[in-house]
Amino acid sequence: MSGIPSRLLEQTVDELSKMPGVGRRTALRLALWILKQDKEDITILGNTLIKLRNEICYCNVCFNISDSAVCSICSDNAREKTQICVVQDIRDVMAIEQTNQYRGLYHVLGGVISPIEGISPADLTIDALLERLHDGNVKEIIMALNPSIEGDTTTFYIYRKIKDRKIAVSTIARGIAVGDELEYADEVTLGRSIVNRVPYESSLKG
Amino acid sequence: MSGIPSRLLEQTVDELSKMPGVGRRTALRLALWILKQDKEDITILGNTLIKLRNEICYCNVCFNISDSAVCSICSDNAREKTQICVVQDIRDVMAIEQTNQYRGLYHVLGGVISPIEGISPADLTIDALLERLHDGNVKEIIMALNPSIEGDTTTFYIYRKIKDRKIAVSTIARGIAVGDELEYADEVTLGRSIVNRVPYESSLKG
Repeated sequence: MSGIPSRLLEQTVDELSKMPGVGRRTALRLALWILKQDKEDITILGNTLIKLRNEICYCNVCFNISDSAVCSICSDNAREKTQICVVQDIRDVMAIEQTNQYRGLYHVLGGVISPIEGISPADLTIDALLERLHDGNVKEIIMALNPSIEGDTTTFYIYRKIKDRKIAVSTIARGIAVGDELEYADEVTLGRSIVNRVPYESSLKG
Repeated sequence: MSGIPSRLLEQTVDELSKMPGVGRRTALRLALWILKQDKEDITILGNTLIKLRNEICYCNVCFNISDSAVCSICSDNAREKTQICVVQDIRDVMAIEQTNQYRGLYHVLGGVISPIEGISPADLTIDALLERLHDGNVKEIIMALNPSIEGDTTTFYIYRKIKDRKIAVSTIARGIAVGDELEYADEVTLGRSIVNRVPYESSLKG
C-alpha cells in the first residue's frame, strides 16, 4: 500500500498487520480509528498490551494463565482434586469452563507433539503433569486434545507414560454434535459415535 | 465471555474489543497471540500506537496526515498548484493518489455537513479552504465527496461560497464502474451516466 502520507502511520500499519487476521487494509482502518480517539484512551490501550505481555503469569501447577503463582482453579478448594483434564491451550480451559460440566482440575500442555513443526514432548509441560501424579491423589486423567493426528499422538504418548499407575485415562467423547444431522456427519465421527454408544439413560444427564 | 482466568487478560480483551470490527472473540484471539510474541515486539507495537496518536501532525495547508507542518504533497513543486481536490478524509487522498491520475493538490475537510450527526460547516476545514483561494493561484476546485445526501449538501455549500470567484468547480464523474454490468446498475447512477456522457475520444484517455 503506497500512498500512505506519513512514516508514522506506515509504521503503525506495519505493526498492526503483524496480528493474525489483520491485513494492511484493516490495519490502516484501525490506525485511522486510533487517530480519532482520545490520547489518554490510546495510551491505555498501548500500555495494556505491553503490560499483558510483560506481567502475565502462568499457574505453577497447571500452566493456565493466572494473575498469581497458583491460578484460581487450582487454588479453589471446591474443585475435585482427583481429576485432571489435559488440554492443548488456555482457550480450551475457557471453553470447558463455559460448559459448567466439569469441576476438576486442568493441565495445559502448551501444544501437541508435532515432529513436522519440531515440537517434541520436552517442549510441552508433560513432565510437570507426571510430577503432579506422584502424590497419588489423582484418580483420573481426562485427555481433551483436538481430534488430529498430533492430538491423538500426544494422547497416546501420555497414556503410555501413565498406564502402569493406578490412574484411569479417559478421552472426551467424539460423536455427532448436538444439533448436527447424521447424514452430513463424516464417517469417522459417525463410526466412533456408534462404537462408543452410551446407555440411553446416561445420555439424559447432559 | 466469562471464564477468562486473568484480570490482565480480561482488561486486554476489553481494550482490544473497542476497536472497530473487533469483537470479544477476536480480541481474545489477538490477546493470546500477544502472549506468544517476544516482549520486545509487543513493546514496539504498544508504543507505536501511543506514538501515532501523540505525535501525528496534520498538514497546515491541506489537513492531510503528515510528519511535518506541510505535507509531502503540498510541498512538492512538481504538483499542479492550480487544482485543489476536496475530499472527506485522509483515506480518500490515498485512494486518489493510488490511481496516479491526479497531479494537483488536496484539501481534507475532515467530514461532511450532517445536521443529524451535529456536524456543521464550522466543524470542517471549509474556512481554511476559502483562505487558500485568496491568492488567486487556484483555477479549479474538484469536489470528490461520497455520493450521499451529506456529501451533495457539502458540495453545494462550498459551491455557493466559491461561485462568485473566477474558479471552476467540478465534481468527479458518477457512472458505471469499470467492469460493472449495465443491467445491475442502479437507475440514478445509470441516469447520471447518460446525462453526463463523454465524447468517445476523451473516454479513450482513461
